[in-house]
Amino acid sequence: MTVLLYDNPVSGNCYKVRLILSLLGIEFERREVSVLDLSDRIEVLGGLSPTLNVPVVVLDDGRPLAESNAILWHFADGTRYLPDDPYERARILQWMFFEQHKHEPAIAVLRYWQSIREEELPAAETEAKRDAGRVALRVMERHLREHDYFVGAGFTIADIALYAYTHVAPEGGFALDPYPAVTGWLARVAAEPGVTPISA
Amino acid sequence: MTVLLYDNPVSGNCYKVRLILSLLGIEFERREVSVLDLSDRIEVLGGLSPTLNVPVVVLDDGRPLAESNAILWHFADGTRYLPDDPYERARILQWMFFEQHKHEPAIAVLRYWQSIREEELPAAETEAKRDAGRVALRVMERHLREHDYFVGAGFTIADIALYAYTHVAPEGGFALDPYPAVTGWLARVAAEPGVTPISA
Repeated sequence: MTVLLYDNPVSGNCYKVRLILSLLGIEFERREVSVLDLSDRIEVLGGLSPTLNVPVVVLDDGRPLAESNAILWHFADGTRYLPDDPYERARILQWMFFEQHKHEPAIAVLRYWQSIREEELPAAETEAKRDAGRVALRVMERHLREHDYFVGAGFTIADIALYAYTHVAPEGGFALDPYPAVTGWLARVAAEPGVTPISA
Repeated sequence: MTVLLYDNPVSGNCYKVRLILSLLGIEFERREVSVLDLSDRIEVLGGLSPTLNVPVVVLDDGRPLAESNAILWHFADGTRYLPDDPYERARILQWMFFEQHKHEPAIAVLRYWQSIREEELPAAETEAKRDAGRVALRVMERHLREHDYFVGAGFTIADIALYAYTHVAPEGGFALDPYPAVTGWLARVAAEPGVTPISA
């Protein structure tokens, strides 16, 4: 069996999975799920994803796995994208939990409303997410002033997790000019062999 | 060196770390950080936690680690609380990312405002978090109707991560009666050797 990815082309969380599978040369089949019309979610994803969110993969043994960063971990384990050192592995998880708790809920959500749904959130909510997104970008900026990549000496799944929505943050109205260390890191990630942007 | 935990007694995220360290019999020193007065955060946690949040641990080799679920993973790896099977490990991460993305931002945050700060959030925000928390509880309920624990046959760090804020969810105004599979699981976790509630 080929790996099956329940996917959406504009979702950064789905992009993470497409990217790691491509980098590792793992063949996969894509099945597109809408992020605008959610009416068929139970029918399509019930029994595969507890939250009915994409991405979900069905592994080559038929078992399902959800949550983008858990999927990254699963495929990257044993490869150059997830080092063996226990401390580096824990730090990779540290940054991936930061991404899902502090970065994605602000930066991905504003992009979703502005560029994908093309609707307005209530102003107070937009403002709160704008502030939270800037805080997340400053956290990244401070770290990247002193490090080329998030963990260790090279490109890992921590970088993939954070690259996904950062390289398209302007689509949610976030200017990246105030974060030169972040933009330098974005350029380094973009230059990694096999990395293509979400729109490619 | 002893493990040092920057801790707060009412924080569920800190409780996760205290619990795994106690279960594993690892000695640690606690240094209390306020969750109400944040004015000394940079002075105390700068250089240790990128987000200036607790918990943070300083390991016995002097290196820092932040994010509660990354800390759980680090200490549990190689123990009965984190099995070796690659698929089970990925599923544990799946549920821990669910916890930080969908559960904690709703259920922990309402508890923080209602029972710790004792202040009101704006009504629309409270309502949105109430709805999101109920969705998270329903996701847990559906899974626990068919499983005794979140992953595999026994108690793992996925259960610890989700137990932390679920067993005190009523402090945030969430009734647990509508979720009998969740309350059954809470009782199983509470009966695990060495598990004590946050208030103990």
